[in-house]
Amino acid sequence: MAELTGNLLVAQSGGPTAVINASVAGVVQESGLHECIGEIYGGLNGILGILNEELIDINEEKARTIQRLRHTPGAALGTVRYKVDFKKKPEQAAKDIQRLFDVFAAHDIRYFMYAGGNDSQDTAHKIHQEAEQRGYPLRVIGVPKTIDNDLPHTDHCPGFGSVIKYNATTVMEIGADVGSMATEAGSCCIIEVMGRGAGWIAAGTALAKRTPNDPPHITLVPEIPFDETTFLARVQEVVGQLKCCVVVVGEGLKNAAGEEIGADKTHLDAFGHPVLSGAADRLADFIQAKLKLKTRTVKLGYAQRAAAHFASATDVDEAFACGTAAVRAAVQGKSGYMVTLVRQSDQPYRWTTGLQPLGDIANVEHFIPRDWMSEDGFLPNEKFITYAKPLIQGELHLPTEAGLPVFGVLEKIRLEKKLPPRA
Amino acid sequence: MAELTGNLLVAQSGGPTAVINASVAGVVQESGLHECIGEIYGGLNGILGILNEELIDINEEKARTIQRLRHTPGAALGTVRYKVDFKKKPEQAAKDIQRLFDVFAAHDIRYFMYAGGNDSQDTAHKIHQEAEQRGYPLRVIGVPKTIDNDLPHTDHCPGFGSVIKYNATTVMEIGADVGSMATEAGSCCIIEVMGRGAGWIAAGTALAKRTPNDPPHITLVPEIPFDETTFLARVQEVVGQLKCCVVVVGEGLKNAAGEEIGADKTHLDAFGHPVLSGAADRLADFIQAKLKLKTRTVKLGYAQRAAAHFASATDVDEAFACGTAAVRAAVQGKSGYMVTLVRQSDQPYRWTTGLQPLGDIANVEHFIPRDWMSEDGFLPNEKFITYAKPLIQGELHLPTEAGLPVFGVLEKIRLEKKLPPRA
Repeated sequence: MAELTGNLLVAQSGGPTAVINASVAGVVQESGLHECIGEIYGGLNGILGILNEELIDINEEKARTIQRLRHTPGAALGTVRYKVDFKKKPEQAAKDIQRLFDVFAAHDIRYFMYAGGNDSQDTAHKIHQEAEQRGYPLRVIGVPKTIDNDLPHTDHCPGFGSVIKYNATTVMEIGADVGSMATEAGSCCIIEVMGRGAGWIAAGTALAKRTPNDPPHITLVPEIPFDETTFLARVQEVVGQLKCCVVVVGEGLKNAAGEEIGADKTHLDAFGHPVLSGAADRLADFIQAKLKLKTRTVKLGYAQRAAAHFASATDVDEAFACGTAAVRAAVQGKSGYMVTLVRQSDQPYRWTTGLQPLGDIANVEHFIPRDWMSEDGFLPNEKFITYAKPLIQGELHLPTEAGLPVFGVLEKIRLEKKLPPRA
Repeated sequence: MAELTGNLLVAQSGGPTAVINASVAGVVQESGLHECIGEIYGGLNGILGILNEELIDINEEKARTIQRLRHTPGAALGTVRYKVDFKKKPEQAAKDIQRLFDVFAAHDIRYFMYAGGNDSQDTAHKIHQEAEQRGYPLRVIGVPKTIDNDLPHTDHCPGFGSVIKYNATTVMEIGADVGSMATEAGSCCIIEVMGRGAGWIAAGTALAKRTPNDPPHITLVPEIPFDETTFLARVQEVVGQLKCCVVVVGEGLKNAAGEEIGADKTHLDAFGHPVLSGAADRLADFIQAKLKLKTRTVKLGYAQRAAAHFASATDVDEAFACGTAAVRAAVQGKSGYMVTLVRQSDQPYRWTTGLQPLGDIANVEHFIPRDWMSEDGFLPNEKFITYAKPLIQGELHLPTEAGLPVFGVLEKIRLEKKLPPRA
């Protein structure tokens, strides 16, 4: 494969995770090792910033800032939910693609690294295909990112380990709290977690269970249809035994008819997905109405995906490695792939990175296998625990100042624009 | 003052904090230093367990477990919301008080240390008064505890520093997350925090503000009546400037008529307080209806008061010191006091403990002074920041096992009951 000389552009897309910036740090650190890569640019707010020719010069950033990206939540380059949608908006999509290649050409971009989830990998795939069609030499590699852990062909996704480490810790802490309050009738606490249609995050909190009576006592995953009667019976059983029942529910929990119990169907995000909220409140309504038990809800929301202060060191290392692997693959001549995490053994945990064609990734969702959950569907079983346990190992040495974390903030020195504004 | 020889009983009451067990550890460690104190007993679930003669022998616990209590959330001895209520239930209260003294006498309890908030200090006060009236030699000392920080006569309350450290960190992290997502119209995130009628916790998140544009952009405290019009105008102003507005709201926020905007008036806890929830959702409704901005809510709930994994080392030290000071005061002959925290200087932060008569504490709430908040009421000012900043300093070296915290769990070896069951 002939050496390709030019500049590298890295961008982030979709909902941030605690470690998406660690992947950018990996891309940046690795890029510096390869002479074929000239400048390292960042696209602000994903595709949207690139369309607007809003690029920054990452080589202007301090080395300390790049190091700090390893433990900085949010998307340091900015992110966006913007879809180049050939199906629904073919005209706009054609314009967008033309504009992207105008920007690439104007800044001699030959390497494009895009960190994101399903939809973002789809965008990367389209850019790769277009480059081939045009004969524009460009190496496109996707960097996996999603707390939802629903990308196919990768053992797991960077971001997932940190969110379940934080959420499992929160379940332990809330369990110690509510379990210590004596109540005559007993009580419930419902913790709503993210994950959309996949239950990986909800099930991951079962790592908090050291003994059978530990919380969570029930984890409700969207993969298994919710049945009010069996759920209430199980809650009553737990409260009868322990006086207190901690339930973790995935935001995308569905009933037998396939309707999300907490969906607000009137709000859609830019990808057309319903904005989910309220599964915990719905369950609390059921419990209070039918079982007359005091029930409190917790909705961790964005706190869970941004909780860098208790991120998994394993997750950070893997996210960083996905960034370095992406650059190495591109330098070696690969394009049109997403980096994957490949598990070599569970115990001791060993992993490496791999590559999967982007066409296999885009818009495919990966769910919890049914036989990784208990027969009654209320808790994950040992297969899931064996899978999830290594992903939360290790703590960061988070720098703090005056009692609070110190995060990296990019200076974002803009490149001079070379094109007329986007039409 | 004559030396009083006998056993010590320690118990916990009300909602747990991240550091209420550190206070118990302080009581236990200090008790071991005084020969006049014979056995060290724990009352399970506060007053309720004592009424039921459910006492444990703390000297049977491992030293390691007592050490671990310093970083264990929840109430290790169990807790309760149970009021000896002479006003509303005079007959039951008279029976309860008689029973408590039967239990004290049966187990030769001469020292009673009670960790709790306003209502619990009221209970301690009644027990102290009754002991004097009966001529039963008993030394009663209250140990302050409440995340709400609303006890009077103490500079602040153990539990408060940890909750605002965790919440401010969460605001920083959520700010990095939502602030990095490009949206055309802008967006809001409303974070609901605890504190009941006091805004200390909501205001405390302003420690996350390092520069004027940092989140939180608005903190709504129950001490300042909520006005929808000025609030929406401020939100619009922030979104206009920053594209993103992070609002922190205290659960007990009230309108000009004094009605809690998120109160569910149909549910009352055992002390007759309304169960608060929903302030964030109400604000989100206002914003979405009037400003048409995408708004997400986060309800940290119990997670915030149980977040031992990111507790303030200062808070832990102070909570522990309140426990040791309580025992020392009792040994020195004092009874009917609550330990207080006394600030000696802000910078460098210096503090010591003091004592305040329990009668001055019970059922009095301490609110944020109006001149500690900005004129428009939307953020605390430098006076508040100077006050709050020292309280979040220092991180714990939390032991972990397989990626999750290790908490202390008491074995709870029960004392043999000497009395017939409670009537």
